[in-house]
Amino acid sequence: MHGYTDNKDDHLRRLRRIEGQVRGLARMVENDEYCIDVLTQISAATRALQSVSLNLLDEHLKHCVSQAVAEGGTTADDKIAEASNAIARLVRS
Amino acid sequence: MHGYTDNKDDHLRRLRRIEGQVRGLARMVENDEYCIDVLTQISAATRALQSVSLNLLDEHLKHCVSQAVAEGGTTADDKIAEASNAIARLVRS
Amino acid sequence: MHGYTDNKDDHLRRLRRIEGQVRGLARMVENDEYCIDVLTQISAATRALQSVSLNLLDEHLKHCVSQAVAEGGTTADDKIAEASNAIARLVRS
Amino acid sequence: MHGYTDNKDDHLRRLRRIEGQVRGLARMVENDEYCIDVLTQISAATRALQSVSLNLLDEHLKHCVSQAVAEGGTTADDKIAEASNAIARLVRS
Repeated sequence: MHGYTDNKDDHLRRLRRIEGQVRGLARMVENDEYCIDVLTQISAATRALQSVSLNLLDEHLKHCVSQAVAEGGTTADDKIAEASNAIARLVRS
Repeated sequence: MHGYTDNKDDHLRRLRRIEGQVRGLARMVENDEYCIDVLTQISAATRALQSVSLNLLDEHLKHCVSQAVAEGGTTADDKIAEASNAIARLVRS
Repeated sequence: MHGYTDNKDDHLRRLRRIEGQVRGLARMVENDEYCIDVLTQISAATRALQSVSLNLLDEHLKHCVSQAVAEGGTTADDKIAEASNAIARLVRS
Repeated sequence: MHGYTDNKDDHLRRLRRIEGQVRGLARMVENDEYCIDVLTQISAATRALQSVSLNLLDEHLKHCVSQAVAEGGTTADDKIAEASNAIARLVRS
């Protein structure tokens, strides 16, 4: 079980919507819609992906990282280092 | 016709791949895969969307903005302002 | 002369303010202020730098890129490629 | 005492360097240096600020958040929510 398991349905609903947004982008390109309109929708899909990430991260801190911290020692250090690297990838993507 | 029309197939191929990535994210969540692995894949999908944006923007500058600049006057000013706003949304998403 | 020359004072005023923000960050760290408060101020300084970039880019499109487009040929192509690379760096920083 | 106190000198050294980078940006603008070169340096300063943030956040997770998690209850919940909000601001700046 992971931190996000309790909110699985919400994550799945968001991801399905984003999948639809990306399909919609392909339709816009197929229909030769104006570049700026396609760019606007890409920014929207990117922000939606970001929100899924931030929710998953919050649940990961509450659940997996907190459990590891309770255990202490290298388990905690490794889990926090792993979370920090994920945050760095998120910030730089 | 827009700047991206010549590269339409490339954009469609990338968008289809991103659509598959997002579907893959939903599968990972359904299969209770580890949070950090899901986050890593989200960062990859975000960067893929970013690349599509940057390509579209480059083609937009080469084609639509350049045409407007050739016309000059408010046509050029409006088109550049529109491009700058799209860049700002992209930077802040 | 560059696109930003007309707004030089505004850019210099913003950059001086950001310089002060960064100096303020050092003071916060020296005074052992709370991590989250320091992080909040770093986000503010980052957004301020972003605004300077977006203004410079807008002026660059209006001035330098437009002039190159008017000249046409490889001058225009090179200048747009250069602008697109700068936008990519901005998006990924 | 905060998570970053042990690495205070490193943070101060980085922030002083960034302060110098921002001062250098003002000099570039004063000397009418080419827009793209100024943009390139702004991206460098932005990434340097990002690194300071990510280091501070890592130390905050190791120290302040871990302590709060050890205490448990609302202390832990509040501290994690606060960290998640700081991460969101960082991602969106």
